Amino acid sequence: MSKIGFIGLGIMGKPMAANLLRKGYEVTVYNRTPGKADELAALGALVAKTPLELAQASDVVVTMVSNDQAVEEIYFGQNGIAAGIRPGSTVIDSSTISPSLARRIASELAEKSVRFLDAPVTGSKPAAIDGTLLFMVGGDKETVEAQRELLLAMGREVLHMGENGSGAAAKLAHNTIVGINAAGLIEGMAIAAKAGIDAESFLKVVQGGGAASKQAELKGRKIIGHDFSVQFSLALMLKDLKLSSALTDGLGVPTPMLEAAKSLFQTGQAAGYGDEDLAALARVYESWIGRRIGE
Amino acid sequence: MSKIGFIGLGIMGKPMAANLLRKGYEVTVYNRTPGKADELAALGALVAKTPLELAQASDVVVTMVSNDQAVEEIYFGQNGIAAGIRPGSTVIDSSTISPSLARRIASELAEKSVRFLDAPVTGSKPAAIDGTLLFMVGGDKETVEAQRELLLAMGREVLHMGENGSGAAAKLAHNTIVGINAAGLIEGMAIAAKAGIDAESFLKVVQGGGAASKQAELKGRKIIGHDFSVQFSLALMLKDLKLSSALTDGLGVPTPMLEAAKSLFQTGQAAGYGDEDLAALARVYESWIGRRIGE
Amino acid sequence: MSKIGFIGLGIMGKPMAANLLRKGYEVTVYNRTPGKADELAALGALVAKTPLELAQASDVVVTMVSNDQAVEEIYFGQNGIAAGIRPGSTVIDSSTISPSLARRIASELAEKSVRFLDAPVTGSKPAAIDGTLLFMVGGDKETVEAQRELLLAMGREVLHMGENGSGAAAKLAHNTIVGINAAGLIEGMAIAAKAGIDAESFLKVVQGGGAASKQAELKGRKIIGHDFSVQFSLALMLKDLKLSSALTDGLGVPTPMLEAAKSLFQTGQAAGYGDEDLAALARVYESWIGRRIGE
Amino acid sequence: MSKIGFIGLGIMGKPMAANLLRKGYEVTVYNRTPGKADELAALGALVAKTPLELAQASDVVVTMVSNDQAVEEIYFGQNGIAAGIRPGSTVIDSSTISPSLARRIASELAEKSVRFLDAPVTGSKPAAIDGTLLFMVGGDKETVEAQRELLLAMGREVLHMGENGSGAAAKLAHNTIVGINAAGLIEGMAIAAKAGIDAESFLKVVQGGGAASKQAELKGRKIIGHDFSVQFSLALMLKDLKLSSALTDGLGVPTPMLEAAKSLFQTGQAAGYGDEDLAALARVYESWIGRRIGE
Repeated sequence: MSKIGFIGLGIMGKPMAANLLRKGYEVTVYNRTPGKADELAALGALVAKTPLELAQASDVVVTMVSNDQAVEEIYFGQNGIAAGIRPGSTVIDSSTISPSLARRIASELAEKSVRFLDAPVTGSKPAAIDGTLLFMVGGDKETVEAQRELLLAMGREVLHMGENGSGAAAKLAHNTIVGINAAGLIEGMAIAAKAGIDAESFLKVVQGGGAASKQAELKGRKIIGHDFSVQFSLALMLKDLKLSSALTDGLGVPTPMLEAAKSLFQTGQAAGYGDEDLAALARVYESWIGRRIGE
Repeated sequence: MSKIGFIGLGIMGKPMAANLLRKGYEVTVYNRTPGKADELAALGALVAKTPLELAQASDVVVTMVSNDQAVEEIYFGQNGIAAGIRPGSTVIDSSTISPSLARRIASELAEKSVRFLDAPVTGSKPAAIDGTLLFMVGGDKETVEAQRELLLAMGREVLHMGENGSGAAAKLAHNTIVGINAAGLIEGMAIAAKAGIDAESFLKVVQGGGAASKQAELKGRKIIGHDFSVQFSLALMLKDLKLSSALTDGLGVPTPMLEAAKSLFQTGQAAGYGDEDLAALARVYESWIGRRIGE
Repeated sequence: MSKIGFIGLGIMGKPMAANLLRKGYEVTVYNRTPGKADELAALGALVAKTPLELAQASDVVVTMVSNDQAVEEIYFGQNGIAAGIRPGSTVIDSSTISPSLARRIASELAEKSVRFLDAPVTGSKPAAIDGTLLFMVGGDKETVEAQRELLLAMGREVLHMGENGSGAAAKLAHNTIVGINAAGLIEGMAIAAKAGIDAESFLKVVQGGGAASKQAELKGRKIIGHDFSVQFSLALMLKDLKLSSALTDGLGVPTPMLEAAKSLFQTGQAAGYGDEDLAALARVYESWIGRRIGE
Repeated sequence: MSKIGFIGLGIMGKPMAANLLRKGYEVTVYNRTPGKADELAALGALVAKTPLELAQASDVVVTMVSNDQAVEEIYFGQNGIAAGIRPGSTVIDSSTISPSLARRIASELAEKSVRFLDAPVTGSKPAAIDGTLLFMVGGDKETVEAQRELLLAMGREVLHMGENGSGAAAKLAHNTIVGINAAGLIEGMAIAAKAGIDAESFLKVVQGGGAASKQAELKGRKIIGHDFSVQFSLALMLKDLKLSSALTDGLGVPTPMLEAAKSLFQTGQAAGYGDEDLAALARVYESWIGRRIGE
């Protein structure tokens, strides 16, 4: 069985690494904040002092960090993965990053005879814990097949999207739809509220008809109850929409729905709701209609 | 059991009236195009020559026609419902119309001591046949309760939205979300396609993640297969978005998502896709990205 | 010389009627609020008690009121123009109304052998006083030519747009550009302010370059100085954008710029700035960027 | 008098450098394509073989190239300015670039004790020839004052915007307004055309009213005459709107007008009009309304 290195032990990364340990993999972990590794060490993980050291000790390295900047530092910073990784090994990144960065990593690692997959996930904390994540993967087909078993130790499905960068692009396209559906749900609920319609009944209509969606299921009752505890923060949603806008600017695709959603979440961020759940976009519409949606 | 009059025997109206007959109601029907009543007459329906005649013979009148103009003609035109309806009876409109028209009908019928409900539905032809429609109803609570049994003879759920006009408004707010979700899905699929991602795999990602929606379920495979046979036509979607835009202009709600979707479907209509399914909006994006989404 | 009837003695109408008197026309005036006619009576105007009475006494009737509803009442209400106007006479409306209403008036008056022109203006109070208004006129060419001299008694230019309704449509298309240019100016000034650029200097750049516009000239310094005294109110701008949106929905033209501007002014209205100058849209952007543009 | 180095001899750069020669400055020039320098050499310019060589020979270096990438190469590429520039000298960039790049250049040159100004211009080829450009300048006040005379040898006005990066930001904010005004003008003209209004007359209305703008002056007749010969190409307009969108994403300003315009020009680019004048956006609207605006 391959020796696995796992970098990034946050909300998603820690349970993913724990699942690898539980399935019997030998796992070395690294996190910038050292204390985060203790729990996994108790489950049998080795702890590396730097990404470089971790890379030297691993056949496959998996990374799960917060954004482009963190990925750049872990791969190409001082004592980074690129400095320690051995020819013939494989690196998998599951962060949500820009496709151009994914392609750049692939190309720089290829020069060291190292294979790379960009393999972001859908599913949040509970799916990471249950091992039911869905991986959308960019990279060459053989590498995807070679790592399928490893990925299925952390998730329920592995879908090959295309060449390097297309995993990252799929994640952004997916999250673009998330942002549009969430913004559309909230706009519809605001219209209904302003028209004097009972919010609970309207949500039933939505979920019983063609307007039904995962976002309505996840956010509908949170909006009515003004429960903006974070599942997926408004700031993170906005970050992804900005990455997607940069992607589509590069691709040359007109994206009026994405742009409308981006401006709305930007308004929510400017109003100070960035650290709340993305459902807090409802607060923006509530300020416009002069009433609470759920009242 | 009440005597029912049913006006409008199109794709939705005919199976709805048939369900009433099957449940044992005495039903008189009317349609502008006379031949459409034959099938129902064979099931035991009486056929009226005018809405006026039908109204005179009924305790409850149900109407299901195509738009504001058709409703105005059937209610207030020559030999219309308003001219024949008896005090104490009830009229229910299940068409998708503007809330202002619903309120005007309610107010004019109230002067004749006639109760009115605006009761549009979600669910299309199959749900009309199976009797699994969902009714969102505007009107006073007692009238809704008094007609609940009748409505449940045609549907699976009856939800009271608020006073007259709020059934019509709920339908428009619901369909606004439909239009936004459909446009967002198509935009996301276009981004993915332009980024070189396999469409089938991307649709699996969408349906497996936070981007999942009824529209993705209904339209995803139609888009990939370029099957634009009509479930809900692009022209009808556009009509509803225009009604919704007029509603929100009146309510004073800023609706950037709705407006973005409206402009897109308008573009699709201008390009000649009005008579295809709303999924044909994909054709607009395909002209922008220079390739088929499903290839 | 023709006998003129003039209805609507507001900010625009009063100086227009005064110019007719000054040029020697015999003018009968009417205003819903009677006191408004006193000043003109002092200049020699006769005062009618109703639009009907005024119409009976006039060869040409000019109307200048606030919106569709006011026009409908003055033309078709009790004691309205339509009830008194004589065959062979001409009616000119200079209000900003929807083209569909203009066409309806034309058609109803034609049945009485009365000619109609929809002739809205550009230019505000000062231009009304100086007689330098520009008339954009819808109606048949001979009628326009027959009334050119009368219109030039109140303005500097008479432009024939096309058949009835196209004067009204031209006004809406014009004001759509006004709204877009004003919103674009404010958005650009907000970007500059957030980027730490001196507002006065940026305005000089705007006026010295390809971004120059009448709106920058009229509103630039008002925005910097937070002087939102009304030249053209935000509420009126929003009203016109809504009329234009209804017009373009009917024409089937996708109008993403108009819709974006409409949503913004709607946001300004919802925030309580409707009675200020349209430049107060700057307040919306200032709430987003967290600072005054002019500081 | 200072020795000047001038890099970038395109449509704008060549006449700017010629003006410096005419005013008596000693000018060394460099262009990637060598032949472009011949004309200036005939006017007395020295010709350098690399930016490095040019920088070594100059007290002040002015650069005027096409985009971020070209600027990066000239400053930091092999034999670039940064490798040759002497402490105490000044570098001025007049290209349209992203503010973040301008700030990075300023910071890297400061480490070599070299002053930097980002000083883009408004005004196109004729203004470059006549020496009537307007410079909007980012950098410290003393450096701006020290170079004012030099800049006025190429332009009519020098406006200090703020610290480094704010010249670049001002240019993007300015061009954002240009794009919005142009798109708004075309949308308004399309509405008018679809409503059956004569295009020439409508343009007179625009220029006579509150909708008047530099864009209407520059593009109105081009649109009517379908003359899309390039003053400012659609592709370049789109490039600037994308840079502006990236800037405002970074600043956190919601910019719905900018995004709407960006999507429209992106649509024009996707339809193949990138190499025509930005007025060719009219072709997109013409495809929507099914007729030529000017007919």
